[in-house]
Amino acid sequence: MRTGVTVIIPAAGDLWRSKLMAGGFVLNGNGEAAGLMWLLESGILETPIALTNTLSIGTVQKALVDWMLGRYPGIGVTDDTLAPLVFECDDSGLNDIRGQHVKGRHVFAALKSASSGPVAEGAVGAGAGMMTYEFKGGIGTASRRLGPENGGWTVGVLLNANHGRRPTLRVKGVPVGEQLRDLMPGKFRDGSIVIVVATDAPLESRQLCRLARRAMLGLARTGAVAMHGSGDVAIAFSTANRIPHYPKKPTLRLKVLSDFFIDPLFEAAAEATEEAVLNAMLAAKTTVGRDGNTVHALPHDRLKSLLARYMPVPQEAP
Amino acid sequence: MRTGVTVIIPAAGDLWRSKLMAGGFVLNGNGEAAGLMWLLESGILETPIALTNTLSIGTVQKALVDWMLGRYPGIGVTDDTLAPLVFECDDSGLNDIRGQHVKGRHVFAALKSASSGPVAEGAVGAGAGMMTYEFKGGIGTASRRLGPENGGWTVGVLLNANHGRRPTLRVKGVPVGEQLRDLMPGKFRDGSIVIVVATDAPLESRQLCRLARRAMLGLARTGAVAMHGSGDVAIAFSTANRIPHYPKKPTLRLKVLSDFFIDPLFEAAAEATEEAVLNAMLAAKTTVGRDGNTVHALPHDRLKSLLARYMPVPQEAP
Amino acid sequence: MRTGVTVIIPAAGDLWRSKLMAGGFVLNGNGEAAGLMWLLESGILETPIALTNTLSIGTVQKALVDWMLGRYPGIGVTDDTLAPLVFECDDSGLNDIRGQHVKGRHVFAALKSASSGPVAEGAVGAGAGMMTYEFKGGIGTASRRLGPENGGWTVGVLLNANHGRRPTLRVKGVPVGEQLRDLMPGKFRDGSIVIVVATDAPLESRQLCRLARRAMLGLARTGAVAMHGSGDVAIAFSTANRIPHYPKKPTLRLKVLSDFFIDPLFEAAAEATEEAVLNAMLAAKTTVGRDGNTVHALPHDRLKSLLARYMPVPQEAP
Amino acid sequence: MRTGVTVIIPAAGDLWRSKLMAGGFVLNGNGEAAGLMWLLESGILETPIALTNTLSIGTVQKALVDWMLGRYPGIGVTDDTLAPLVFECDDSGLNDIRGQHVKGRHVFAALKSASSGPVAEGAVGAGAGMMTYEFKGGIGTASRRLGPENGGWTVGVLLNANHGRRPTLRVKGVPVGEQLRDLMPGKFRDGSIVIVVATDAPLESRQLCRLARRAMLGLARTGAVAMHGSGDVAIAFSTANRIPHYPKKPTLRLKVLSDFFIDPLFEAAAEATEEAVLNAMLAAKTTVGRDGNTVHALPHDRLKSLLARYMPVPQEAP
Repeated sequence: MRTGVTVIIPAAGDLWRSKLMAGGFVLNGNGEAAGLMWLLESGILETPIALTNTLSIGTVQKALVDWMLGRYPGIGVTDDTLAPLVFECDDSGLNDIRGQHVKGRHVFAALKSASSGPVAEGAVGAGAGMMTYEFKGGIGTASRRLGPENGGWTVGVLLNANHGRRPTLRVKGVPVGEQLRDLMPGKFRDGSIVIVVATDAPLESRQLCRLARRAMLGLARTGAVAMHGSGDVAIAFSTANRIPHYPKKPTLRLKVLSDFFIDPLFEAAAEATEEAVLNAMLAAKTTVGRDGNTVHALPHDRLKSLLARYMPVPQEAP
Repeated sequence: MRTGVTVIIPAAGDLWRSKLMAGGFVLNGNGEAAGLMWLLESGILETPIALTNTLSIGTVQKALVDWMLGRYPGIGVTDDTLAPLVFECDDSGLNDIRGQHVKGRHVFAALKSASSGPVAEGAVGAGAGMMTYEFKGGIGTASRRLGPENGGWTVGVLLNANHGRRPTLRVKGVPVGEQLRDLMPGKFRDGSIVIVVATDAPLESRQLCRLARRAMLGLARTGAVAMHGSGDVAIAFSTANRIPHYPKKPTLRLKVLSDFFIDPLFEAAAEATEEAVLNAMLAAKTTVGRDGNTVHALPHDRLKSLLARYMPVPQEAP
Repeated sequence: MRTGVTVIIPAAGDLWRSKLMAGGFVLNGNGEAAGLMWLLESGILETPIALTNTLSIGTVQKALVDWMLGRYPGIGVTDDTLAPLVFECDDSGLNDIRGQHVKGRHVFAALKSASSGPVAEGAVGAGAGMMTYEFKGGIGTASRRLGPENGGWTVGVLLNANHGRRPTLRVKGVPVGEQLRDLMPGKFRDGSIVIVVATDAPLESRQLCRLARRAMLGLARTGAVAMHGSGDVAIAFSTANRIPHYPKKPTLRLKVLSDFFIDPLFEAAAEATEEAVLNAMLAAKTTVGRDGNTVHALPHDRLKSLLARYMPVPQEAP
Repeated sequence: MRTGVTVIIPAAGDLWRSKLMAGGFVLNGNGEAAGLMWLLESGILETPIALTNTLSIGTVQKALVDWMLGRYPGIGVTDDTLAPLVFECDDSGLNDIRGQHVKGRHVFAALKSASSGPVAEGAVGAGAGMMTYEFKGGIGTASRRLGPENGGWTVGVLLNANHGRRPTLRVKGVPVGEQLRDLMPGKFRDGSIVIVVATDAPLESRQLCRLARRAMLGLARTGAVAMHGSGDVAIAFSTANRIPHYPKKPTLRLKVLSDFFIDPLFEAAAEATEEAVLNAMLAAKTTVGRDGNTVHALPHDRLKSLLARYMPVPQEAP
């Protein structure tokens, strides 16, 4: 397998000069979350987000800095410096992580090829070396769109899932992990999960921190218990307001959703996260990594049969 | 129904002079959690814990203070003052909460009658007016004992469950709430959940904060999404070390579990919380409250039949 | 002396139905800060703020609840419940704190007599039993108004100062405490400080948390080191935006200051806090409390003479 | 000038296999603090600490990772991965920061030449490009040793000072900044301060977080108000307990100081930080940086004369 990097360009336009509001939540702070301190202090998101493996943090952080320096000649001269967002998961179960095979050029290539539209899931980019509940995992996405009575907002989740022990895996509540005890990886290492939540609802940083927490509740529905060795970090951002880099006027005019209307967004973030974890597993294929370590894909047929058995046609609902 | 108060005396002996280590976590900080700031700063638990309704916080806090003043004549003269722990849920769906029917004498009576042994569950004490996923709820408990290979520690949970919307309720993963759409309460109000986790594992405050977080992951498995109107607070304490009030020597000798052995405790806290929520509902009986508002008990027979249908005899497990 | 209560009504109008944005910061979480958890989660301030002594928290909290129930018949029936803000300092050095002499009627009287205009400082209300650097202290206020080039905003501070050991006291940087080693209180107890920062600058909750932190930096300039036994808590609120209780439309339109213009407010909060601590001491008079314990006022003449000696006419400034 | 890197090896012996307890505090989270999330979650310190400039974070983080990989062949194979501590200040006022002149070999050289004994102060290593209150600053250190009645513990501070506007500078309380308005730098940029506190007192992570907060109170005494553009981060560690990497027994035996004896350490951390800021300035020499930007040293003679004028021989102390 090839380890890799995944980059997210959070919105169209010049993000550095026209920033987004953002928040985050650390469920278990194992590992690195470069840029998170600044995101939480400022409540803004102003750079691309990169996901990679644990020992490539430095390389990828430098590459993002270099990319920004190339675009903004004023940075570090007449303009501020930056603290880009780089998150990691440990892919050493499959990847020769010590080899540090992610190079700056991979980051530049990923930035260049980033596009809107459907997201490739599974063992792609930073997802290449991931294990999810001891099956093959990686990048997963899902979204929810609220009905017009709830504002019609969309909540999208992109995550890199590298966490969990097999026995606790639940799919739509079904204790799938208990029923699929074979197909275990040759080598296991506690991993992490990085969750990025995006919404067009006009939330400010405090609310986006709250939204990030709800992503973790969706994660818990899949059976996660945030092991000591797992770095479980979520960030959330909103595309509704753009914050000028150096505003002409001191006072900004913002749209902000009232907290009294936020519950459907909370539920959407939890639901989309639960589904995105499953999607990461469904998209991934059995992978042979370093030292011949094989990590199996979640077997679709057996999953289907289990779900079918556990999920009868509803009979009692009104 | 009668609103009420529940008190927890966390350990035998003189807790004020021989304190416990403690931690906590606020998933959603709606409502009041008296004493929590001090618990988090000091990492200790030194008073009984009281649970009551939202508008009785002042009365119950004063009663705990009075009780402590009665026992410790030095407090406020030669000894420190105190900040006792009082948590609340809003029981206004069933209770005439404006009437503030909880009096200091109820707190004293509860303290006097507190005993070790089995805990009454359901609509007792502070649980009287609770709704859980729009069924009748209240006090629930559950525990897990680790195998000897994991230290043989016990994790016990006592909670007061007053949270959740019906459609999201899951019981052992089964989407029970979607299947039980009748038996709705006449009046609903977003509520809260207070979770107290106890263990004999030798954890210190940082670790107990982590344990409290995992209780919330167990809560999430039941379908909770921590609504805006819900105050979701967990504390955790360990009975393993006793911290002297005024130590004779500056340096204490403590036993502390290595983080590398903490995962089974995390899983136990999540599991016990998930089960305690269910136990709260199973123990509660249909209740008619103020203005004739009826809150139904989770119907045991229909729950059983749903679980039976959704949980076939395992066929595939080895 | 008479112990007491001080209430702050943060703004004109119906605060419950038209709330303020707010934030806070706990430098050292000894003692109680009722309502703070909710303020931090919601980012709003919706009730009066009360300051009192440590063992009167319950009484005063209940009184604020009662006052709100009287004004809002819907609370706890058709409307939400509440978690009012009550902060405390330990006045047991001067006050028979075990007697719990603060009654609900004192809170009602304070609420009734609250008015805009100059604030009485020193040993008034909750300030009655305070010691500040082992001199008599209590309520202090100060404010700063920014120049028009910085927006012309005002930052006001009201605090209740009950903290500090004599040797570390600095007044305008002058090591006054080292020079005034006599006039010591008969009995000393580590105390706390509660700081309330108000501004008309349009700050949101994240920014107001930041402002509250800067109040603590001003406190540090007076020599405070946030002793273990000291509860050092600051909240901050802005009068610029009013947040409707149940908004008609989900999306609010807010004015928010850009972070790039916030530094003068930070400096103002630090300066006003530093000055308010001094003002609390200057306004207080020598007080004899329980058991004949005498706490001396900071002697104005000796302070003046010290400052004069340490603060020569500037000679070098351009 | 040459920008650079400063490394701190926190204790003798094999830190990775025999870790230290640690804590931290973020006063203002501008910039990057790699490794801090993990330090706060785990309460341990297990790698060297590096200080550098803002745009060299990636390079230096990678270098620390490489250095650790070289020493520990098991990392990323049979052993955990790591998240080393790298903090930064923006030296773009003096340094061609876009040039990223810090290379991995500089980190390795710094690690190789690290030794115990006196620490070079001022414009050395990461201190090369620092400005402190618009004078030349950089690395500063100071320490306090408690008397035997307070345990005889030592608190040492090493910091990299790059913060502050001239007018607010106070030296030992004297408003030096107001009196020294000339000698301004050609170019100014809001900077940061990174503070590392070390002690041999047996503190655990919660207490070390508290100690880190007190360092910030000492910083405030020098006039700092933690500007929006300033990243003000402190960490603290204790050399008293060593935590085994993979302990043989699950339960560790730790010595921990009782909180009731912690105040002298708090005062020591504040005092040492205040002094270390001054030492950084006193050791630094006038420096000409990029584009001919000159940053002046704090003029010793004028400082002495100001202090002499403001600090008369005490006359009133007993």
